[in-house]
Amino acid sequence: MQQMILDLIEEKKFSKLRSLLDNLNPADIATILVEVDEKDLPIVFRILPKELAAEVFSYLESDMQQFLIEKLSDTELKIVLDELYLDDTVDIIEEMPANIAKRILSQSDANTRKKINQLLAYPEDSAGSIMTTEYIDLKKNMTVDDAFDRIRKIGFDTETIYTCYVIDRSRHLLGMVSLKDLLLNPKDCIIGDIMEENVIFANTLDDKEDVAGQFEKYDFMALPVVDKENRLVGIITVDDAIDVIQEEATEDIEKMAAILPSDKTYFKTGVFSTFKSRIPWLMLLMISATFTGAIISSFEHKLTAIPALIAFIPMLMDTGGNSGSQSSVTIIRAISLGDIEFSDIFKVIWKELRVAFCCSITLASVSFIKLWLVDYLIFHTFDPGRQMLEILVVCITLFITIIVAKFVGCVLPILAKKIGFDPAVMASPFITTIVDAIALLVYFRIAVAVLGI
Amino acid sequence: MQQMILDLIEEKKFSKLRSLLDNLNPADIATILVEVDEKDLPIVFRILPKELAAEVFSYLESDMQQFLIEKLSDTELKIVLDELYLDDTVDIIEEMPANIAKRILSQSDANTRKKINQLLAYPEDSAGSIMTTEYIDLKKNMTVDDAFDRIRKIGFDTETIYTCYVIDRSRHLLGMVSLKDLLLNPKDCIIGDIMEENVIFANTLDDKEDVAGQFEKYDFMALPVVDKENRLVGIITVDDAIDVIQEEATEDIEKMAAILPSDKTYFKTGVFSTFKSRIPWLMLLMISATFTGAIISSFEHKLTAIPALIAFIPMLMDTGGNSGSQSSVTIIRAISLGDIEFSDIFKVIWKELRVAFCCSITLASVSFIKLWLVDYLIFHTFDPGRQMLEILVVCITLFITIIVAKFVGCVLPILAKKIGFDPAVMASPFITTIVDAIALLVYFRIAVAVLGI
Repeated sequence: MQQMILDLIEEKKFSKLRSLLDNLNPADIATILVEVDEKDLPIVFRILPKELAAEVFSYLESDMQQFLIEKLSDTELKIVLDELYLDDTVDIIEEMPANIAKRILSQSDANTRKKINQLLAYPEDSAGSIMTTEYIDLKKNMTVDDAFDRIRKIGFDTETIYTCYVIDRSRHLLGMVSLKDLLLNPKDCIIGDIMEENVIFANTLDDKEDVAGQFEKYDFMALPVVDKENRLVGIITVDDAIDVIQEEATEDIEKMAAILPSDKTYFKTGVFSTFKSRIPWLMLLMISATFTGAIISSFEHKLTAIPALIAFIPMLMDTGGNSGSQSSVTIIRAISLGDIEFSDIFKVIWKELRVAFCCSITLASVSFIKLWLVDYLIFHTFDPGRQMLEILVVCITLFITIIVAKFVGCVLPILAKKIGFDPAVMASPFITTIVDAIALLVYFRIAVAVLGI
Repeated sequence: MQQMILDLIEEKKFSKLRSLLDNLNPADIATILVEVDEKDLPIVFRILPKELAAEVFSYLESDMQQFLIEKLSDTELKIVLDELYLDDTVDIIEEMPANIAKRILSQSDANTRKKINQLLAYPEDSAGSIMTTEYIDLKKNMTVDDAFDRIRKIGFDTETIYTCYVIDRSRHLLGMVSLKDLLLNPKDCIIGDIMEENVIFANTLDDKEDVAGQFEKYDFMALPVVDKENRLVGIITVDDAIDVIQEEATEDIEKMAAILPSDKTYFKTGVFSTFKSRIPWLMLLMISATFTGAIISSFEHKLTAIPALIAFIPMLMDTGGNSGSQSSVTIIRAISLGDIEFSDIFKVIWKELRVAFCCSITLASVSFIKLWLVDYLIFHTFDPGRQMLEILVVCITLFITIIVAKFVGCVLPILAKKIGFDPAVMASPFITTIVDAIALLVYFRIAVAVLGI
């Protein structure tokens, strides 16, 4: 299909192209346009019917949007903007350089411009920033028939008609009624009698992640957004909630890997931006590792006495780090899904300690058997006095390290959340650095005590 | 609110309780029921109106569902089951022990039982397993008015009425029409004339993760599912797609932290299950670390010659591990969001190498300055011949390790995907183990070459 379209563009068969594109989904057309040669792009875009053109436009990446806006005449731009939903226009403006943003605003009528500016003013992570102001509002004393008239009148321009909101004269939210209810009730029913009064809503300044969580919990299609005075100012639709859910998951995953989150896709982020998002944590963690080095340095003369001990350092550090990151990542995800709160901290610690105990008993035993078998049975190099003690030191350290690692791994994210930090930062890399230092301290102290070096 | 309800139960004020619950959202009632004493649970559940009772039931955790089913009489169970959507019934049956599953099936009528058994037969991760068979189907030659009649007739029992599907006599999918289109077109319009023929659909055996991705891409509310003969067998609604998106993100995050994924929430997973999901990777990675130990052992006598080198091992290993996991996690997420495919492999490598170069130059320089400053300027212990060389060894190793780590980190997930493995497994812990070994080999070889030990 994609090749067929690219060929038609090549051969300039535009009427055939138009009828082909007309049958495609706007998201698919946007994907195909990425492959189109830049010089053909404005032509192809212009042959799309205006409504479709606007939809395709909203699915394009921002660099292509910018390119197209620069090529379109003011009249063409106005046509596209008129067809776009307000929340999409706002998303586009937020990504554009100032001169293009200005041009977009100048092509909108005064009323739209006012609404756009209001939406632009909401903080980046707020419910207000992802809502749209186009929805169906009804009055309490309307009949079902009146409601249908209103839907037919303003429904073309609203993002969803399936949930309608009932407001009073000062736009206070009184209730909601679904199109299903409207359809399944007699035409002369009064809206006030059939509306659902117990409406769950968001405030404009609520965190958009929490709002997306509401969609997951309640299976909503749309959620009304009110201002401080409880007046309805917009709605959030489920498609925007899905985008937020995916973005937040990506952000958490990035933070867990010690990357500063970016809101662009992999290839859209330049080399230097990628560098900038990765270097701060790498640098910080590298410098923190100096402490681990200092611990080794201070035990240097003891290590040279029994060099065999050095070989176990990576295994102890890695196993500790992995144990700790298993706990921290599990807890971080549970916090962000709302399964764990601060009050659960002792329940979490108790569970993690029991899991840690099972893991450390198992791993320490396996290590013991493996070291004993390898040294004693295979290499026949076993000196029952000395080497058995060394093996014991390694296994006891392993046991203690895993328990400490799981404890640190589960406590830090919960504490971080409590003091207002992002728990996702307390994931593998951070935990690993702490656990490394602890593992080495435990290792050397036990070695000194048991081996008497 | 929760306390008020618990008090009413305590005081046995059931009629007041009923009118209070009647105004709440079923998801919220389910949350409150968790706090209710077990002995009161059946009573509270019975006072709910039957439709609400069924909705609340579908939001409960499976252990509470099982408890309630055991307490309900056959008649009561049948009432709840009749009100449930088929896909919810199937979800419940899947979680129940055999005897309860049998009891549920025996309370359904023959037709429902047949449909349930069909749904139960779809593989766990397939589109078929999350679809519902209750939807609005229309015929091509119906008018808009006929369509409304049909929606009013069967709409009560379908999960969504907002997208209707047009099928022929053998149930082949011909097109779809949204309720918005029906409302905004004249009553005598023929469905065949206004329906959208270019319908995007899923097959019953498609991976549910891919299907959820379609919802994200196209902003759908529902997606039709067809069998091998292109006959419509069900639909998937957006609320189920959201659940899949969250589950898949959790699964990826767990795999990235070397945990076998589980489908239960944190507190619902027992200590032993948690242990079982964590121990295999811990064990495997611990045993792999033996190789790292072997590398150290084989250079043991050289290390004892210059013990200062030991202190840098943790810093080199950690920085390598962190660099590698940044790349691997970024790539894994991009793969699962569909931003990167196998054909992008060289583009990815080229980008990662440039980022790696920037990171390694920066970190090696910072290390150099730090080591030089600390040794020379602060401690005045600088021996220009020897120590400058040691610092050089550390910085060159750091430089090479970061580049190798980022290369390994970006290539492994893409290759894993290509050969049919889950890329998420190629995250931090796995990469760390490989990078550790590489870092040490590079370190010791350079040390031997430069310092001539």
